[in-house]
Amino acid sequence: MSTAPPLLSTMMDVPLTVQSILERVRTLYFAREVVSLMASGKDEAGNPVPTVHRSTYGEVAVRALQLANALTSLGVQPGDRVATLAVNSYRHLECYFGIPAMGAVLHTVNIRLHPDQVAWILNHAEDKVLIVENLFAGLIPAIRAACPHLEQIIVMGEPAQSVEDVLDYDAFISGFSEEFAYPDLDERQAAAMCYTSGTTGNPKGVLYSHRSTVLHSLVSAPKDALNVGEADTVMAIVPMFHVNAWGLPYTCALSGAKQVFCGMFSDGKNVAKMLEQEGVTITAGVPTIWMGLLAELDRAQQAGTPYDLHQLQSLIVGGSAAPEAQIRAFQTRHHLTLKHAWGMTETHPIGTVSNLPPGVSVTSDEGFTLQAKQGRAVPMMGLCLLSDEGEVLPHDGKTMGRLMARAPWVASSYYKGEGQANFIEIGGKLWFDTGDIATIDARGYMHIQDRSKDLIKSGGEWISSVDLENALMAHPAVAQAAVIAIEDPKWDERPLGVLVLKPGADAPSHAELTAFLAPKFAKWWLPDAYEVVPAIPIGATGKFLKRELRDQFTAYKAAGTAVR
Amino acid sequence: MSTAPPLLSTMMDVPLTVQSILERVRTLYFAREVVSLMASGKDEAGNPVPTVHRSTYGEVAVRALQLANALTSLGVQPGDRVATLAVNSYRHLECYFGIPAMGAVLHTVNIRLHPDQVAWILNHAEDKVLIVENLFAGLIPAIRAACPHLEQIIVMGEPAQSVEDVLDYDAFISGFSEEFAYPDLDERQAAAMCYTSGTTGNPKGVLYSHRSTVLHSLVSAPKDALNVGEADTVMAIVPMFHVNAWGLPYTCALSGAKQVFCGMFSDGKNVAKMLEQEGVTITAGVPTIWMGLLAELDRAQQAGTPYDLHQLQSLIVGGSAAPEAQIRAFQTRHHLTLKHAWGMTETHPIGTVSNLPPGVSVTSDEGFTLQAKQGRAVPMMGLCLLSDEGEVLPHDGKTMGRLMARAPWVASSYYKGEGQANFIEIGGKLWFDTGDIATIDARGYMHIQDRSKDLIKSGGEWISSVDLENALMAHPAVAQAAVIAIEDPKWDERPLGVLVLKPGADAPSHAELTAFLAPKFAKWWLPDAYEVVPAIPIGATGKFLKRELRDQFTAYKAAGTAVR
Repeated sequence: MSTAPPLLSTMMDVPLTVQSILERVRTLYFAREVVSLMASGKDEAGNPVPTVHRSTYGEVAVRALQLANALTSLGVQPGDRVATLAVNSYRHLECYFGIPAMGAVLHTVNIRLHPDQVAWILNHAEDKVLIVENLFAGLIPAIRAACPHLEQIIVMGEPAQSVEDVLDYDAFISGFSEEFAYPDLDERQAAAMCYTSGTTGNPKGVLYSHRSTVLHSLVSAPKDALNVGEADTVMAIVPMFHVNAWGLPYTCALSGAKQVFCGMFSDGKNVAKMLEQEGVTITAGVPTIWMGLLAELDRAQQAGTPYDLHQLQSLIVGGSAAPEAQIRAFQTRHHLTLKHAWGMTETHPIGTVSNLPPGVSVTSDEGFTLQAKQGRAVPMMGLCLLSDEGEVLPHDGKTMGRLMARAPWVASSYYKGEGQANFIEIGGKLWFDTGDIATIDARGYMHIQDRSKDLIKSGGEWISSVDLENALMAHPAVAQAAVIAIEDPKWDERPLGVLVLKPGADAPSHAELTAFLAPKFAKWWLPDAYEVVPAIPIGATGKFLKRELRDQFTAYKAAGTAVR
Repeated sequence: MSTAPPLLSTMMDVPLTVQSILERVRTLYFAREVVSLMASGKDEAGNPVPTVHRSTYGEVAVRALQLANALTSLGVQPGDRVATLAVNSYRHLECYFGIPAMGAVLHTVNIRLHPDQVAWILNHAEDKVLIVENLFAGLIPAIRAACPHLEQIIVMGEPAQSVEDVLDYDAFISGFSEEFAYPDLDERQAAAMCYTSGTTGNPKGVLYSHRSTVLHSLVSAPKDALNVGEADTVMAIVPMFHVNAWGLPYTCALSGAKQVFCGMFSDGKNVAKMLEQEGVTITAGVPTIWMGLLAELDRAQQAGTPYDLHQLQSLIVGGSAAPEAQIRAFQTRHHLTLKHAWGMTETHPIGTVSNLPPGVSVTSDEGFTLQAKQGRAVPMMGLCLLSDEGEVLPHDGKTMGRLMARAPWVASSYYKGEGQANFIEIGGKLWFDTGDIATIDARGYMHIQDRSKDLIKSGGEWISSVDLENALMAHPAVAQAAVIAIEDPKWDERPLGVLVLKPGADAPSHAELTAFLAPKFAKWWLPDAYEVVPAIPIGATGKFLKRELRDQFTAYKAAGTAVR
């Protein structure tokens, strides 16, 4: 290799920043709508009532700049962390722009965490200001007591009970100028922060940069990724406190797409209603959301009052894998296309999107098979598979390996240098160990087989719990299925199927389930036993808590169970 | 503003490089086709005969890596310039990847320049190796004599006449390994180089970086830009020696689009044939190319044998403005959409694309009016207007100003620091003075009014020659129109219309032309006189050479001319 000094280009040194996305919506897309479903009072049963709030990018941009001035007045400086504890809404979107634009760090906190965990995270991140949705105002006294470094708490919307020593978001920002002098930023500066709750140890923080936020938006927009443009209306149901709602608020703003937020109303009925009413073209959420939507669409269809969702082009599904049965149900019964995307908090999150190659139809068997995979890497995203011995494995669609990722929007470490074991050098380059076990085929389609910790290691071979679960969920009696490892004296581990039945369904026999799965799997993959449970425990990001199931069935003996 | 140290992100420091685009086509899109129309022998009249050559991205990638090994064997090192003098083809595409991937600089040279200019540019860039298309092998002895620093000349394809001391491209690279160890690159390193021939002084070099090349590809791909995806087939008729063929070879590769090259066969018949035969969905060229295509489509339609171009979604037009009449003719007679893009050698080139906002139809009057403008800025592209006094002017769609551009893919200087007057500080930031006079409307639609040197300054007010030209070209007798400034003792300058008539058309009278233009312009904008010429001189990049016209009519007196 040469030691000659490289010739530098004559290109401008212009940093990639969230400021430029904000300026873009302010000057080009100011008239595009931002629609939010807000909780407004309660009905007779004490449930919050949804009300539609309409705003525009122009208004959001102006208020974001007012917020930047307001936070500056509180002493917030570039590099300071400002936390949000909020649902998806126009006000949260204002925080997405105003906080990074002033060089501060938008720290979105998961509202589903236990208050102790929220306080732990706020303390670890050393947040200076906390912006709380009125819905969660009840947490404020406890948080304030546990987080002495918090200098100010701001409440978005009218709180149900009165809280002392807080500022009202709308009233506070309205007093500030709509002009803001952007500070010069280094594109590697942190723009946003999100904690990921691993299965072991404390939550770990990932700091997204301005550069990574812009690049992530650019690779997410094209038609073989999320296909977002100015004519689109996008409803991110995935929460804004979870990996920046998969980056959609920025991707949509960069592209000029109208944004719709359903706030706390993510049940099938409200989702279906908003999709129809706002002419949504793209929506995004976890499989649980789509399960609720599918039930509502089925119900409405059977009632002879189907929703008109002809504008809806894709339902992006991520967080965990959508079963092929769900993908087929949406396509065949409602002509709606579920599109897998894969990623993690550490990958910003978009790593892959499962668009079909030219010539493959969404309604063909090949199409369904490919759509059940997580898809192909977006540009600049490197993926590879490692064996337990650290060898790089082939992309043949069969060989399972630990999925490693490398891109300008992938974490190189956690905040304060924690969790270094997840970052590994391969061939002199740093890669992130996703903790997933996957295959990659010759065309680049990546297929998650399992979380490495959920993989069942039987007789020295690997069994994918996810594959078995997806197959089981296609059984007419099965609503949900989780497959976990149980200890086995001979094979080390063997699979146990844990099932939630559909309402009114009878538990199928072990023999029937074995016969149902047999055509699709090697014999030694089939579960040794099944257990029926009323519900599978779900974590704060909507995924099965298999660790809890394993604890529950730790001394499991297959003989003599209900289903066997 | 704060002096607190910024908090850096935890994102990976992964450079944006052409290497990653090459790896993407090699691993994901290897089966997608690369189709080239090559010159093969001559017919009875001595004209080259087109032959279709079919390759794949996989083959292109492997040969690009062989080329990198081959050039390394010649002593080419990172930072060295390697020049190409070639038409659009798979071999040129191999150079696009192989040369930057090794850290060397792809220097594309305009084949239409005079051999003395070619030699001047090769000497100025200090190219180490020159790769020449066989069609231009006749230039080699002169170039070799004028460029003593050139260490090696490589000829692509069989030269018509034998040339001494050159390597045959195919034979040479075939001897090298298909594996290449990529060097580590700084994303700011130069990847490619292109000279722009200003109207005054010597040509000036622009050095594109790996970073700017990747970013330019990312902003060009989305649906509101060029709308390129894997299912697309793209034919860049714009030459690969001209601003990287508007970046399309890289944008297409990043997106997995099939690429079609028509080489030296860019006449209407060959273009139409290739568009139909290869199922092209997107094509790109200058207005002259579309003039030829339109004539051929009209001819075929009138003959009852129309081409089947139902897959063709957009004809991207740039280099100079397409007249609204041409846009309307394609849309109304052939249902084909011309889409303006604007840019320059200094802007990589994409600055704006004229996609219509949601709800505006391509066949509406508003649609045609917007399409005749140059469009809106792609993400991260900053545009502003300056007065002659250096004030920033409003974006009201009326106020004309000097168009300034700023983006991570805009030049901050020319090679060797030349032409510094074109780079101006505004508010502490560097901007590039495009030399264009434009308006920008409230929605961000930019409309080039003129080159600042072609603008007619009459009585202290500005008259846009381009607007008048476009209007004149809608007259049924007019094939081409150029409007230039002539000296005027009272008004300083007044407009003169220079016309090329359609075959067989009679010259319209001055009165008729005045009446034709009157509804569209202020009275004082209307040309004082018209001249009919057999042809308007065209420069090496396909634009009118108005400087030559001005020279020709330098002592023009309006009285007593043919048309008046």
